[in-house]
Order: sequence, then C-alpha cells, then structure tokens
Amino acid sequence: MSGYGERYDQYYTAVEAALPGYLPREETLQKTVQEAMAYSLLGGGKRIRAVLCLAFCQLCGGTVEEAMPFACAIEMVHAYSLIHDDLPCMDDDDLRRGKPSCHIQYGEAMAVLAGDGLLTLGFGTMLDQHHTGKYSPQRVVKAAAELAGAIGSAGMIGGQVIDIQHEGKPITGEELDLLHSLKTGALIRASARIGCIVAGAPDDVVARADRYARNIGLAFQITDDILDVTATREVLGKPIDSDRENQKTTYVTLYGLERSRQIVRDLVQEADLAIKGSVLDDPFLYQLADRLAQRDR
Amino acid sequence: MSGYGERYDQYYTAVEAALPGYLPREETLQKTVQEAMAYSLLGGGKRIRAVLCLAFCQLCGGTVEEAMPFACAIEMVHAYSLIHDDLPCMDDDDLRRGKPSCHIQYGEAMAVLAGDGLLTLGFGTMLDQHHTGKYSPQRVVKAAAELAGAIGSAGMIGGQVIDIQHEGKPITGEELDLLHSLKTGALIRASARIGCIVAGAPDDVVARADRYARNIGLAFQITDDILDVTATREVLGKPIDSDRENQKTTYVTLYGLERSRQIVRDLVQEADLAIKGSVLDDPFLYQLADRLAQRDR
Repeated sequence: MSGYGERYDQYYTAVEAALPGYLPREETLQKTVQEAMAYSLLGGGKRIRAVLCLAFCQLCGGTVEEAMPFACAIEMVHAYSLIHDDLPCMDDDDLRRGKPSCHIQYGEAMAVLAGDGLLTLGFGTMLDQHHTGKYSPQRVVKAAAELAGAIGSAGMIGGQVIDIQHEGKPITGEELDLLHSLKTGALIRASARIGCIVAGAPDDVVARADRYARNIGLAFQITDDILDVTATREVLGKPIDSDRENQKTTYVTLYGLERSRQIVRDLVQEADLAIKGSVLDDPFLYQLADRLAQRDR
Repeated sequence: MSGYGERYDQYYTAVEAALPGYLPREETLQKTVQEAMAYSLLGGGKRIRAVLCLAFCQLCGGTVEEAMPFACAIEMVHAYSLIHDDLPCMDDDDLRRGKPSCHIQYGEAMAVLAGDGLLTLGFGTMLDQHHTGKYSPQRVVKAAAELAGAIGSAGMIGGQVIDIQHEGKPITGEELDLLHSLKTGALIRASARIGCIVAGAPDDVVARADRYARNIGLAFQITDDILDVTATREVLGKPIDSDRENQKTTYVTLYGLERSRQIVRDLVQEADLAIKGSVLDDPFLYQLADRLAQRDR
C-alpha cells in the first residue's frame, strides 16, 4: 500500500486526466458555453469529492476505472454549484481559486448557462454509463438518484438558500450545522455513497461511508471558516476575512478559534469510528480525515 | 374514443392534479425556494410537453399513470428553463403567463436557485421511480438519459446560448432552425420519446414519435413568432412585439407572415406523415398538430 500523499496524487492525477474527456465536443454556435463549462470544471481544486468516490469504490472491491465517470460527474455538479454561488445575485465573488470567477470571465448569462450545463452534464455522464454495458442499470439509476437527492432543495440547494437568507442575520449553532450539512455535506456524503454503490456494496457499508463523510464534510467546512480568519490571501487564492465582510455567522464567530479547532478534532475522531473494523478500515481514509482538518489552504 | 378537446382536457387535468404531489414538502429554513419552485411550476401553461408524454405512452400500450411522474418531471425541467430564461442577465422578462416572473416575485438569487431546484427535481422525480418497483431500472435510466441528452449544452441550453449570442445580430435561416431545434425542439422531442420509452416501445416507434415531435415543435415555435406580431397583449399574457423590441431575428422577420404560415402548414403535414400507418396513427395526434399551428395564444 503506497503512502497517503502518493495515493491522493494518483487519484487526483487520474481525475484530472479523465475530466476533459467528459466535456462535450465543441460545436460552432454553442462554443462559448462549452468553453465556460471547461473553464470552471478544469480550473483546479482539490478534487476531494472525486477522490472520495474513487477511494470508497476501491475499498468496496470496485476499481478506479469503474468509479471514474461517476467521480467526474460529481466534480461537474460541484463546479456548477460554485459558478452559481459566485454570481452577483448570490455571494458576488469575483475570484475563484485565484482566477476570475466564471461570470467575470464570460459574463453573467453565460455563467448561469454554464452552471446549468454542468449540472445537466453531471446527470448525463452518470446515466450514459448505461450504454457502455459495463454497469447494471440498477447501479446507474441508484447512483444518479443519490446525486439528485443530495443536491436538490432538501440538500445542497437548500443549504445555499439558508446561507443567503441568513446573511447579516443572527444564526444559531443548530441552524449553522444544518446549513453546512446541506450546502457542502450532502454532496460530500453522496460522493462516498456513490463510490460504494458503483462497487455494489451492501447497505451497512454505504451507511458507514455516509457517517465517515458526514463527519469529515463538517470538519472540512469548519476548517474553511477557521482559514477564512487565519490564512493569508496569497495562500488561499481568494479574499480572506470575506465572511466577516459579508457579516456571515461562522463556527469561528459562534464558538471562537480554539473551540472550533476542538470541534474539528472531535469530528475527525467520529469519522474514524465510522470505518473502524469494517472493509473501509484503511490508512488512507484515516489520513485523509486528519489532513483535511490540518490543511492550511 | 373521446374528442380532441375532451382528451386534451383529461390529460391536462390529470397533470395539474399530479404536479403538486411531486414538489418537496416544505422545510422550515428552505421554505422560500420551495415556494418559488411551486410558484413557477404550478403557474399555468398548456402542459403540452406532459400531454405529449402521456399520449405517446398510451399509444404505445402504457398507461397515463405510468407516464405521469415522467411527464411531471419534464414540466419541472420546462419550468426551470423559463425561470432562467427570464432572468435579468438573459431575456430580462418581468412577466410570465400574465404574472410577475419568478425573479420579480422572489428576487434574483431565489429565482436562480428555484430553477436549479426544479432541474434537479426533474431528474430526481424520474430516478426515484426506481424505488417504486413499478418500472424496470432499464426504462428509468433510458428515460432520464433521454432527458439529460435533450437539455444539455448540445440541446436546450445550447439553444439559449445561440439565442443570447445572436440578439441584435443577423442570423441565417439555417441558424434559426438550429436555435429552435435546440431551444424548444429538443425537450418537446424528448417528451414524446420518453412517453414511448416508459411504455417499452421499440426503437422504430420511438423514431416516429421523434419525427412527429420535431415537426410540431418547430411549428409551435414559428407560431409563437407569428403570434408575437399578431396577438394582443391581453390575449397572450405577455408583452407583444417583444421580439422586435429585442431586435431578434424570427421566422416572421426572415420570411414574412404569409411564408411563415406556409412553413407551419408544411411542418404539420410532415408530422402527420411520421405517424401515418403506425401504432401512433391516432386522431388525437393529428388534431394536436393542427391545433398547435392554429392557436391564437
């Protein structure tokens, strides 16, 4: 078994190599939106959702190749959510990963459509696997249904709604938990679950993967809040202290830095417990949880 | 066999009765987006896409009940496309079916999210049918894949891109055909195809349904262009002559009123030929094509 960094790099490199192949080939008249989709999809990022999907599929007896179209589809959906979140009417962010946001680069109309296009392409990429004959239709439909359940108005979109509606308003710790569990947690959990589903894992394993992902997802988000006040603009590639500027309630404003760091440690421990003694009991997942909570960007 | 009007009303009434049941139940914090989704989805319209889906399913030996979740899912996707098309950064339309557009009623952020929510719910509604045990996973995945193929950047979204990019610029007849075949045609074709697929129709029947729908879809669009210059604001429920105001090239500006009307008649004849002598050879479809081309709103 190779070390953590090496293994993450292997997954990451495989995802980066595979992603462009799922983009539509450029037609004359719709070229701009397809460029905008490529700009945002291939614009970097840690690919943590794809890595989770690939890793869980492998741990459940599947292969990286099997999970790849599903992992790439999840990254498309993640990219769509970032494009729409950055829009002037939403979070109004001009920078994403140190580069102009999609609407700054391509204009607002094209950014809305590029987001719509990536969301649709995410579903299409999963569903098209049916035609390859490599997957049972049951697994394809189950994976795509997981995605739809995770990112709708009762999932990721609902999280963004709560976020926008509470901007500049007080929010309780419970509401903040719900916000994060929907806005970022739902898709991270779906990533792990879909990896298991593609490999045909039994329900109890899917449930363990879900519990692991739920905890690291929240740890990831709280670490984001911590970094927003501690990191420098250069390291982060986006404006720092943007949460305070936008008057957002975060774990840090609610609990302070030290207590927030302790919550992260507790969540990582919870994640560890979820996989302990199961087929998912693998050094990579323990280290992934640790690193997510200790990252400096 | 009941008459055309009676049969359309039966389909229409069944769709209107079924649609609310597919909307998410309201949660406390995400309530606003779910209201905005309901506002646009239940805000009227002819439900022509849903009717096509139901009718084709029936003609292929299926039932209205079987086709209903798929027909409703298609209406959700149609509603999403209208919400995003109306946005200030797109067509900037304040009125939709005589009522304030979604972004006028709920604000821009909520309108973007309501559109995203309805698109996601459309896929989710189809995919969730897997859990009912009433459909083979093959049919569910095939129907959902049809949808994804029809509405992506090579389909409906691509049509909107071409539309926006050609606003105020000259467009050829060929480009206008492509624009309509993508922007409205793709989803109308998918509606008919999905109806057939749900009933388990063979490929040649799906191809006939596709050809019928392609022709009536274009006839429908050209009739829209004609109505934009001939109807009154009161009858249409939206600003008339908006195309000329937006300097859009339409069939009417390209070919004039009389030639446009002739093209519509030719398309209806083509649609008729597609179904003649097949299981789809039914008075309802002939009359539907006729009425679409002769409607006054």
